[in-house]
Amino acid sequence: MSNPKEIHARWLYTGSAGAEVLEHQTLCIDEVGRISAIVDSADAPKNRDAEQVHLDNHLLMPGLINCHGHSAMTLLRGYADDLALMPWLQDHIWPTEGRWVDADFVTDGVNLAMAEMIKTGTTTFSDQYFFPDATAKAASEAGMRCQINFPVINVPTQWAQTPNEYISKGLQVRERYKNSALISVIFGPHAPYSLDEPTLQRIRTLSHELDMGVQMHVQETKTEVLHAVELTGERPITTLDRLGLLDPSMQCVHMTSLSKDDIARVARSGAHVIHCPSSNMKLASGACPVHSLLKAGINVALGTDGAASNNGLNLFAEARLAALLAKLTTEDPAALPAEQALYMATLGGARALGLDHETGSLETGKWADCIAINFDSAAMQPVYNPLSQAVYAGHGAHVEASWIAGRLVLKNGKLTTLDETAVLQRAVQWRDKIASQDLN
Amino acid sequence: MSNPKEIHARWLYTGSAGAEVLEHQTLCIDEVGRISAIVDSADAPKNRDAEQVHLDNHLLMPGLINCHGHSAMTLLRGYADDLALMPWLQDHIWPTEGRWVDADFVTDGVNLAMAEMIKTGTTTFSDQYFFPDATAKAASEAGMRCQINFPVINVPTQWAQTPNEYISKGLQVRERYKNSALISVIFGPHAPYSLDEPTLQRIRTLSHELDMGVQMHVQETKTEVLHAVELTGERPITTLDRLGLLDPSMQCVHMTSLSKDDIARVARSGAHVIHCPSSNMKLASGACPVHSLLKAGINVALGTDGAASNNGLNLFAEARLAALLAKLTTEDPAALPAEQALYMATLGGARALGLDHETGSLETGKWADCIAINFDSAAMQPVYNPLSQAVYAGHGAHVEASWIAGRLVLKNGKLTTLDETAVLQRAVQWRDKIASQDLN
Repeated sequence: MSNPKEIHARWLYTGSAGAEVLEHQTLCIDEVGRISAIVDSADAPKNRDAEQVHLDNHLLMPGLINCHGHSAMTLLRGYADDLALMPWLQDHIWPTEGRWVDADFVTDGVNLAMAEMIKTGTTTFSDQYFFPDATAKAASEAGMRCQINFPVINVPTQWAQTPNEYISKGLQVRERYKNSALISVIFGPHAPYSLDEPTLQRIRTLSHELDMGVQMHVQETKTEVLHAVELTGERPITTLDRLGLLDPSMQCVHMTSLSKDDIARVARSGAHVIHCPSSNMKLASGACPVHSLLKAGINVALGTDGAASNNGLNLFAEARLAALLAKLTTEDPAALPAEQALYMATLGGARALGLDHETGSLETGKWADCIAINFDSAAMQPVYNPLSQAVYAGHGAHVEASWIAGRLVLKNGKLTTLDETAVLQRAVQWRDKIASQDLN
Repeated sequence: MSNPKEIHARWLYTGSAGAEVLEHQTLCIDEVGRISAIVDSADAPKNRDAEQVHLDNHLLMPGLINCHGHSAMTLLRGYADDLALMPWLQDHIWPTEGRWVDADFVTDGVNLAMAEMIKTGTTTFSDQYFFPDATAKAASEAGMRCQINFPVINVPTQWAQTPNEYISKGLQVRERYKNSALISVIFGPHAPYSLDEPTLQRIRTLSHELDMGVQMHVQETKTEVLHAVELTGERPITTLDRLGLLDPSMQCVHMTSLSKDDIARVARSGAHVIHCPSSNMKLASGACPVHSLLKAGINVALGTDGAASNNGLNLFAEARLAALLAKLTTEDPAALPAEQALYMATLGGARALGLDHETGSLETGKWADCIAINFDSAAMQPVYNPLSQAVYAGHGAHVEASWIAGRLVLKNGKLTTLDETAVLQRAVQWRDKIASQDLN
């Protein structure tokens, strides 16, 4: 519980389908942290108990939703760049993870990731990584909305040994946070190629029984699809469809290499696609055909992926890149306009995570998850269209304030729930440890 | 003349070919603004008359060189987005320019552009726009290094009526700034399709006689090439080659649609290519085959293009996008590593503009054009590799200080030679005028 708030904004964008930017609006937030009204500022209630916030040269809009990532890997930002996928994974990322990843690594990495995400406009993040209990705890303490998709993989790690142990530990995290307003927990089976069919079937059964979502890396590269066809005679999307996993609770991440039949199957199923343009480009995985997916009626959301393959968690940068990439690949400059890229980064993201009744747009009754972008700087002027400015010009650098469930987590560009100095110190310590391993 | 300076940096990158990041270095700047030495900080001269600058958690590196733009168009940032090229130009940009562009528009637009460029790490910019005298004056007053490529086009505008008038007015600007340490002036014939052969021949003759460079939009789109072949039987590169314009003084901008023969001709000629990935993607023009150009030994530099098609002037964003785009188009994650993208944004840019004896790298005798990137924030930690951090993670948002010819133009993130508040006010005034035209 906190004070109610009245936020008076020069521009307000609710992010609901078909919404336009409104001028001089007031967003009212109740004691619980939910939106109680949006009204013309001239008609604002001016509740004496409400904290008054004035955003004279700002756009107030829904906080961004980063639908795919591995937050703790932020500690490996820039650790091994410009390498081919397999040497990158086998010679650098996996051995380093094997040596260093534990609950402390995850806590420190997630705090660093949240600091960056909050400062660049994200209010909800999805996370797939080991020790998800540490991630959930860190997010809960920082007051950030988080959907855990706990990993399930056919490889033993420090966190769990067998798929069954991954599942049972993951479900324990879900149980622990079942009453949390901020944390939701779903399945994160790693990929069709890293799990056997019985495990996938078990996940399908449990997800239906427990009404849980599923997030999975699917068809990230052409090579992955070719290998699957060689091994099984099926494309991975066909396998998921046959196993009953392709439905509205499924979040398919990456999806760069898609046939017409793949797209038709996903469209029929109601599954969601999570597009990670920076990661796909940086690892040369390919380009998700977002335009064709949207035309087929598929909901597409955005993710940064981990900082080791991006190298940041700036979802505004992903929205810009998604728009530019769609224009390039379709040879149509009108493809994926700024509004649509923002939708993918907000309400489209909430729909993918199954959280659109709670967040993703500014509507009465939803949580007040919102950000204020300051236009008072050279890179952001003049303002003909605040939305295209936010997407194409801002690079996430002008987010001045952020509220999650009505709680101010970023004030004048400074974090209020995380101690950034301490977070950075921990990052430097990890860097020193990890870099020293390379010298031995 | 100003005080000599000694800048002590945690990391220093000279940007010379093959350079590596050095730790704890001191850059010494003399009274004129040139680099007098680079030494280990332990051996720094500690000249009592020298201003001492300590950059404890920063990378000191060459300032970026934005090799293509139309700075004044920053006043049209976001004015007409997500449109096809011809409606964008014919229904929006050209009529608006026709109505509003004068020397005041250019002065105010260039000041806004420089404010953004300095804050995102650019110290030298190239500019092609009407009223280049206003651009040169504004750059000179702000202390920014600028290469004017004055426009020549077969279309009458407020600035000049005929190609000959464009040329004679442009040469007057050159004469006026011939002793300037900051301003250089070259030819900016708009494009092969917008000029007749006698004018191109005259420019070639004059550029040889006066030892002046030439910058031109060349083969920006597939359509442009097809039209040229239909009309003339030749590809534009062939025409330029036949006319003797393809030589080391030529800067070919965009170059998305290239045949093997085009690449071979450019390689043989020693001409430079200026790659503008954001603009090419946003306008769906195509992708410049940077990797093939580099393999052929062609020098490739980077440009933002105008803010109306980008929508910013952030060259770090271009360097990142150039790297990602090269990886995507070659299907090779090792293509265009961070160091090479930075080279294109610094020394490669200086070479393209013919200014590599003066700027582009930190070397004794060159002008002290350098920037300091602060790593003390969540998005920039931990630091395994300062260069890949600057390219992939920074988005140009962490430039804290900038010196041009030894003069501090950005201090703690604040402009020292431009009044940002006044610059923004002028931008708002132009926006109000221009937006009101749409209502009439």
